[in-house]
Amino acid sequence: MINNNKGTVIWLTGLPCSGKTTLSKEIEKYFQDKNLPIQRLDGDVVRTTISNDLGFSKRDRDENIRRVSYIAKMLADNGISVVVAFVSPYEKMRSFAREICPNFVGVYVKCSLEECKRRDVKGMYAKAERGEIGDFTGINDPYEKPSRAEVVIDTEKGNIKNSLKKLKKLLGQSIKD
Amino acid sequence: MINNNKGTVIWLTGLPCSGKTTLSKEIEKYFQDKNLPIQRLDGDVVRTTISNDLGFSKRDRDENIRRVSYIAKMLADNGISVVVAFVSPYEKMRSFAREICPNFVGVYVKCSLEECKRRDVKGMYAKAERGEIGDFTGINDPYEKPSRAEVVIDTEKGNIKNSLKKLKKLLGQSIKD
Repeated sequence: MINNNKGTVIWLTGLPCSGKTTLSKEIEKYFQDKNLPIQRLDGDVVRTTISNDLGFSKRDRDENIRRVSYIAKMLADNGISVVVAFVSPYEKMRSFAREICPNFVGVYVKCSLEECKRRDVKGMYAKAERGEIGDFTGINDPYEKPSRAEVVIDTEKGNIKNSLKKLKKLLGQSIKD
Repeated sequence: MINNNKGTVIWLTGLPCSGKTTLSKEIEKYFQDKNLPIQRLDGDVVRTTISNDLGFSKRDRDENIRRVSYIAKMLADNGISVVVAFVSPYEKMRSFAREICPNFVGVYVKCSLEECKRRDVKGMYAKAERGEIGDFTGINDPYEKPSRAEVVIDTEKGNIKNSLKKLKKLLGQSIKD
């Protein structure tokens, strides 16, 4: 059930380099263009502030998502919509976020491992494959595909424009206009 | 300098049982009565959610205040005012909060240790004195009095009504009306 006094929490999950950050910026812009309050929560930012004590073990990843879920909920409870862009590889913690956040919209940012490796924006896949970093999702840490998602955006094969349109339509029904 | 696009962060510091929670609820009500967005961040709530992995060692207390500071900043950056009620015994972390949060208003909730012990709402002082709990501020952990505070509210000797009036006047100048 949609609560219009609250913000929407749009949760993007997907492999590293699947395109989450890019999409989250598009979604942020969509809200800004409508002059609606929006906070973007990105792994790179959160990990240098609220979660700078955490690494990438399963335990630390879960703890990170737990904190982000509570923060997203608090913002949304105050009428601020939130777009979250985290690998968030584990189903259990995504379900936790879905459970506590109001107006939750799960988005699976779909892209094959091969294509993500090819993109490898920061050279992290290469490092993980050389064994220089551990706990890297897709290489030496699992990614559990979402069993549930309101929208799937395939950044490799799909028509991103159409997927975004679908997402925006969905958001248009849930956000305060 | 006051930024009126942002919320105000009212940070209450003081010994356990000095009256922070009670005051924070009055401040919350002040905002609600004016139909202004406000989020109360209370030790008891934060420690069961965002900081439920933390104890009361100096390191954990600092980490707790660090997280709360970032969350308060994020809310205030989005136009939500925040009233924080934490013992926050260490000057260094209070300064950190002051540094990163917009429109910061420091409030020292003053009350003698003797009076706080007398109140001892949850019987914690008694436990700490019997050695049953460690790291308890005022008994076996220090409280560093604020070297700087916009408002001092003496809940023991002072006229609370007048102090609140002073605080509200200060807030009236900084909040979006």
